[in-house]
Amino acid sequence: MSLHSICLTKDMKKNSGKPESLFLTNANICMATDLYQLTMVAGYFECRMNHKSTFELFVRDLPERRSYLIAAGLEQALYYLKNLRFSAKYLKYLKHLPIFKNVSRELFDYLRDFSFKGDLCAVPEGTVIFANEPIVRVTASMIEAQVIETYLLSIINYQTLIASKASRVVHAADGREVIDFGTRRAHGPQAGVLAARACFIGGCVGTSNVLAAFELGIPPIGTVAHSWVMAYDDEYESFQDFNKVFPDNTTLLIDTYDTIKGAKLATKIGKKLKGVRLDSGNITLLSKKVRKILDDADLAHVKITASNDLNEYKISKMLAKGARIDSFGVGTEMVTSKDTPALGGVYKLVEQEIEGRLIPKMKFSKEKTTYPSKKQVYRFLNKRGMFKKDIIGLADEDLDAKGLLQPVMERGKIIYKIPSVQQIQKTAEKNISQLPDKFKTLDCKTKYPVTISRKLRQVRDNTMNNRNAYGHVATCPYKNYGTEKI
Amino acid sequence: MSLHSICLTKDMKKNSGKPESLFLTNANICMATDLYQLTMVAGYFECRMNHKSTFELFVRDLPERRSYLIAAGLEQALYYLKNLRFSAKYLKYLKHLPIFKNVSRELFDYLRDFSFKGDLCAVPEGTVIFANEPIVRVTASMIEAQVIETYLLSIINYQTLIASKASRVVHAADGREVIDFGTRRAHGPQAGVLAARACFIGGCVGTSNVLAAFELGIPPIGTVAHSWVMAYDDEYESFQDFNKVFPDNTTLLIDTYDTIKGAKLATKIGKKLKGVRLDSGNITLLSKKVRKILDDADLAHVKITASNDLNEYKISKMLAKGARIDSFGVGTEMVTSKDTPALGGVYKLVEQEIEGRLIPKMKFSKEKTTYPSKKQVYRFLNKRGMFKKDIIGLADEDLDAKGLLQPVMERGKIIYKIPSVQQIQKTAEKNISQLPDKFKTLDCKTKYPVTISRKLRQVRDNTMNNRNAYGHVATCPYKNYGTEKI
Repeated sequence: MSLHSICLTKDMKKNSGKPESLFLTNANICMATDLYQLTMVAGYFECRMNHKSTFELFVRDLPERRSYLIAAGLEQALYYLKNLRFSAKYLKYLKHLPIFKNVSRELFDYLRDFSFKGDLCAVPEGTVIFANEPIVRVTASMIEAQVIETYLLSIINYQTLIASKASRVVHAADGREVIDFGTRRAHGPQAGVLAARACFIGGCVGTSNVLAAFELGIPPIGTVAHSWVMAYDDEYESFQDFNKVFPDNTTLLIDTYDTIKGAKLATKIGKKLKGVRLDSGNITLLSKKVRKILDDADLAHVKITASNDLNEYKISKMLAKGARIDSFGVGTEMVTSKDTPALGGVYKLVEQEIEGRLIPKMKFSKEKTTYPSKKQVYRFLNKRGMFKKDIIGLADEDLDAKGLLQPVMERGKIIYKIPSVQQIQKTAEKNISQLPDKFKTLDCKTKYPVTISRKLRQVRDNTMNNRNAYGHVATCPYKNYGTEKI
Repeated sequence: MSLHSICLTKDMKKNSGKPESLFLTNANICMATDLYQLTMVAGYFECRMNHKSTFELFVRDLPERRSYLIAAGLEQALYYLKNLRFSAKYLKYLKHLPIFKNVSRELFDYLRDFSFKGDLCAVPEGTVIFANEPIVRVTASMIEAQVIETYLLSIINYQTLIASKASRVVHAADGREVIDFGTRRAHGPQAGVLAARACFIGGCVGTSNVLAAFELGIPPIGTVAHSWVMAYDDEYESFQDFNKVFPDNTTLLIDTYDTIKGAKLATKIGKKLKGVRLDSGNITLLSKKVRKILDDADLAHVKITASNDLNEYKISKMLAKGARIDSFGVGTEMVTSKDTPALGGVYKLVEQEIEGRLIPKMKFSKEKTTYPSKKQVYRFLNKRGMFKKDIIGLADEDLDAKGLLQPVMERGKIIYKIPSVQQIQKTAEKNISQLPDKFKTLDCKTKYPVTISRKLRQVRDNTMNNRNAYGHVATCPYKNYGTEKI
């Protein structure tokens, strides 16, 4: 262990909890953060730099193979902010970390009494958004605004990533059902639950995840795995038994041994057969053959579900080749957003209030320059109500368009009627229907027009130009001001 | 909503909990599963098919760009099995799901009294493993073995995926420190904690995730973000203040405005400066320039940390070009295993005990054929103690090599001294040191030899050949047996 490592004493190892599960709880969410948020908190506290500050959470560039995003995760973010406290057990641990040894003990008294008392504006979940558009805007004391960064990012990055991916998959399925089957390949059991929520927002009809279904009141979906069939000596017997137990929900998995033979056996169930699932082989070809077998057996009502590492590209190709599939079970590719498995959301300081004046803040380093000041996203519609263009402007600009960000929290209180996930799904559906088709192609060739308002450009240029002679200082665009600490 | 959807009644939506957080708890882990596990449970219960059964969890093929895996996640899997219960609230929900309406109510009494009472063998965490090698082997009643599939897969798939990725990153860093900085881009806050654990197993020296550090007794690491520097009107003042608060841990982020100027300013801190971090630009080039600035200022002891979307490929290239970097902060790419973001672990029925006889079970469908019977992984070492080859054989074969799977749970009780994550890291380190270099190259060109034992091949061939005339039946390789239900 070297310089960058903050070594633990033996005593501290003993103090740490028994990591039975590593589950998150309302009691330990305060710790689900990066250490540097806490060192900065200590720094701001010690240096009395706790100015009122505004941060914005946004995605710098759309990920590869994405032409739009669907905002998601706000509900969990709000509950986090509402419940965030630092309990004694964790403060004791932090207090004894070597890195905090020179920090005054008052910091820990401050944290003991901590709660988030800031304001939040946010884009409602289910809204279509693009690069550089703030999804969440936080205004709070510097300490409060800083300490929440990591959790906010991780909850919104993931759900937004998955809702966006699911939206593409649903779009490719062109009206057919898409079901989330991904829990086993999600990044841990908790991610499976969050993915189920995000997939539903993105347009899935249900999920295999029973906990998500229970908590969110969405349909749990699923029938049978290969092990059911393999547990029998005879495939048809396994079909019959399944039909006995689930007479109204007999969807059979027919590829355990041979799909065509399996399909023929399945028809012997008769009219009570509701569906069959194909999970291996050339599914496009098999779906046509199976459809014929079903139709020839006078079972036109029986639906075909396909699964097996599906994604929007495969689904689109299968349908183009005439696959006869009624619903798609999609897992791994959707819940890991496999073709682009991370969303690079960032959370940047854009403004501070110092001596009653609002000071725009920005980052100057190449590739990573940011826009200063509180912003709003103005979305312009054409006469048919379709999205035409967005302008990112200052929050208080008077542009003739709807601002996407709306107040959701005031002084730490949720002031927003949190919609159900069913309502959020409708919001997303409506947004997607308003997004012209050319921005929804899988190849993402056409970029939706997002521009910066004249006023925002001005503030940015002023902030850039007002760097002092040394060239490294982000100054006030209005005039120099003292660095009096409050 | 159509056939595949199990619609909810209005009443059930009301019954569902308030999804404040969607956190997992010991009380709700029973629901963190796929619905089809529960339908199969109902089926086995109704059809009295609760034979003693063995399932194995393994990865069919190594993911692209991986030449080995590091097993991880067993500890959390064991705690899950130990704590798994079905409480009244969830049983009430399940009981009222339309799909279960024809199922006898005794099922829910059975589930009310449910606990996992099976046996587990597993490869210790930190062990290097390859395709087709069972990581976990479960022997239990069919219901018990089936219902745990989803959770087991999701907890072991993810941690194994990340420990394996981290191991590659650490290997590329060639002795320099690697730190997990990934929480904000992990798939939700819980995945950040699991990732921190898996990254540590894979060889990282610590994590930015404070909860993981606390729970696991590993070093929390971190200093400062750009917002710290941006909160000041003057970059140097921000450096000075940081040094005041953290005199023994002054690692400064020097790229907010201009890295070279930032480095020069940082030297003004003097001997108390401990490190600098570069987070943008051409880091290889900048690291050399910054090293020179530091050395010229008589600050040879000051270490350089690099971050910014690093991965094993970039690190390897940077070092090949002579980058002067002492430690790497790695986030997104490591905790999402971005170049291959899912591990396709599967969980397959391999044997059932029926009428006192052990019946091998396998899946015949093309691409997805499995090997039947309880298996063991025999690892052969050469004279220098290096890994030479593995043979996957029957569990009770007498091969002259160490078997990797060992008993960890007996009749639902953990009978295994669960090692600390520090011990697991050592196991992984030792394993990696025993794996010849040619199997550790980033391009994965050389495949480690894993073969199937003669006896296992025999059992497989017998099982294949004993399919009945209809061709779809997995039969007993010994003789036909009845399907008497117990």
